[in-house]
This record gives sequence, C-alpha cells and structure tokens, in this order.
Amino acid sequence: MNEPYERLVQSLKSLPGLGYRSAEKIALYLLVEKPAKADDLIERLSLAQKNLGACTVCGNLTDLSECKICSSEEREANRICVVEGVTDLFAMEKAGVFFGKYHILMGKLSPVKGIGAEQLNLKTFSARLERGKVDEVILALSNDLEGEATCHYLRSEVIRDPEIRVTRIGFGLPSGGGITYADEHTLMNALQSRQDLEN
Amino acid sequence: MNEPYERLVQSLKSLPGLGYRSAEKIALYLLVEKPAKADDLIERLSLAQKNLGACTVCGNLTDLSECKICSSEEREANRICVVEGVTDLFAMEKAGVFFGKYHILMGKLSPVKGIGAEQLNLKTFSARLERGKVDEVILALSNDLEGEATCHYLRSEVIRDPEIRVTRIGFGLPSGGGITYADEHTLMNALQSRQDLEN
Repeated sequence: MNEPYERLVQSLKSLPGLGYRSAEKIALYLLVEKPAKADDLIERLSLAQKNLGACTVCGNLTDLSECKICSSEEREANRICVVEGVTDLFAMEKAGVFFGKYHILMGKLSPVKGIGAEQLNLKTFSARLERGKVDEVILALSNDLEGEATCHYLRSEVIRDPEIRVTRIGFGLPSGGGITYADEHTLMNALQSRQDLEN
Repeated sequence: MNEPYERLVQSLKSLPGLGYRSAEKIALYLLVEKPAKADDLIERLSLAQKNLGACTVCGNLTDLSECKICSSEEREANRICVVEGVTDLFAMEKAGVFFGKYHILMGKLSPVKGIGAEQLNLKTFSARLERGKVDEVILALSNDLEGEATCHYLRSEVIRDPEIRVTRIGFGLPSGGGITYADEHTLMNALQSRQDLEN
C-alpha cells in the first residue's frame, strides 16, 4: 500500500489488544469512513496528553506532578499497595477497602513477552522504601505465574529492608484472574487474608 | 475520573471493535505507560490524515482526489463492483480476478445498528450510473441478511436504468461470511457464478 497508511496501521497495531486486522479496520475508519473522528481523536489525545501523565511518585494517572492519593494527608503513608496497572488502582479505590498509598508497576515480569525488571516502574519505588516511612508493602498482583514471579522478585531483590512487612493478597482471587475484574467482596477478602512472604 | 481522560476514552470507544475496557486500556497505555507512543500515534495519524482520504469517485483510500483504479485507462469502465469497505477492495485486488472499477458503500443497510441508505456512500454512485457508461454493476456484498437487504435496495431503488445488468456474486461465499477473509479461489468462483437479479 502506501507509506503513511502502513505507518499508521503499525502504530495502531502496537496498542494493547489490537492486531493487524483491527488496526487496519480502525485506520480505514478514521481515514475514509469517518474523517471527522480522526480530528476528534487527535484533539482529545493531544489534550489528554498535555494535561495528564503518570504521577512522579506512584505512576497513577494524574493532572498534577503528584497524584491526589500520594499527596493526601489522610491516606496511610506507612502502607504501600503494589499493583500492575492503573485500572487495578481504580478497582481497589472503587472497592473502598484500602486506605494507604499505591505503587503502579506498569506490568509484571514476563520472560515470554520479554518484560524484565528494568521495564517495570521500580526506580521511584526503591526511593520510596528508602525514605523509611513504610511499614508494609502489600503486593496486589495477578494470581498467575507472572504475578507469582514478580512477587518473588520484589520480595527477594527489591524490598531488602527486614523491617518492612511484605504481604501478598491471596484468598479470594480466582486462579488466573487479575485485580481489575474482581468484585468488591472478593477484593475485601483478598486484602483481609493477606499472607506474610518469607524471604 | 477527570474530563480529558473520559473524553479520550469515549473517542477511542467509538472506534470499530473497541469497547469501554479496551478503550480504557489503550488510553492508560498512551498516557501513563508509554507516553512516547502517544506522540507517535498523533504524528502518524495527522500525517496519514493530511495525505490520505476517500477517493471522490469510489471511496477507496487514496493520496489523490481520484484513486489509481478510478483514473486508470486500463480498467474496464463499464463494470462497477460494489463492496462494503476498503478492505473488501484490497481482497478483490489481491485475488486479481476483477478488472473493472469499484464503488465502496462504507457499510451496509442495518436497521439494528441504525444504518440507513443516507449513511451509505451513494451520492456519487448514482452520478456514476447516470453518466451512462456502465453496462454492469456487480454487487459483492456479504452473504448475510444485511448484505441481502442492501442488494435488494440497490437493485430496486438505486440502479433504475433497465439497460444496466445487475448481478450479485453468489456461489462460493460461505453463509455469514464477508469478502475480506475469503481466499482467492473462493472469490474467483463467486465472481464467475454471479447471478442476474430480477427487478
């Protein structure tokens, strides 16, 4: 075909959940069928990008340099809940069962997908732990092999301070499931039944 | 959440194949996880949008006002193949079994989805027929109820000239299937076994 078209399709294809067919469908929809939607998308994405970004402390979506949860005096600063993505934080907040702070990994370790520790949002995490105000880190990661491996890595390589209690939410999460789609009751159970991880 | 974020998610959600969950996932990926990809997408979409658009004659994707097929002297101008979308044209061209011109409807009639004749790319189609050089219109639409209804509508309401032969590709297309995913042999069979539609 032609270059600007192929370049657009490749860019769309790199987004999560889109394959070549769906990227092509969206590209043609925006270029041929509904060109006004392309203007709309460019405008909204530019505006959101200008105004929003990752919190410099935890990685949450925010319109400030530090998100509302990180800067809140009412949230327990001694407890950090580690999640994979922002939608996991949304789900936890909607459940209303956790009152500490968060840290968003932006993924989990996956040798298959080539995601190593350096791809995770860990730089600010170590700094947060070194500030010394953290009593407990709650690992709220998926109940699957990659989540398991990530918990193990965080426990043994990242959270080195023996004073910090490291727990992982456990009971309640169905096997193979993630945080985002769990109901509030399941999340509450999982939080209550958290287990200490031995180093 | 906040307004620029919600507006972006809504815009993404309106694209074909994306629901709220996948739109949210893509928005957070672009804003929080990989902000450089947002620049990339904006740039490529802007560039493609500036350089590409719908052919003013047939609706095909083109970097000119009239696409290469429409302006070609080598293609049979007396035969128009009507397809639903640009990917259907791509599939026909890849099969290399049709040598006339195309017309892209950009959809098909669907009372369920609220798509009526006024949403289809029909204005230029009538003008093309009235120019009087067309001997045959081949309807290459999906083999489903909506395709059937669209063929019936085009035959009885749009192609009124009794001199024009109207055919519909028939044999070979599996029931419920569209043009894009058919193999070349199936498309060749379908083209060869086209049937006259009675008014």
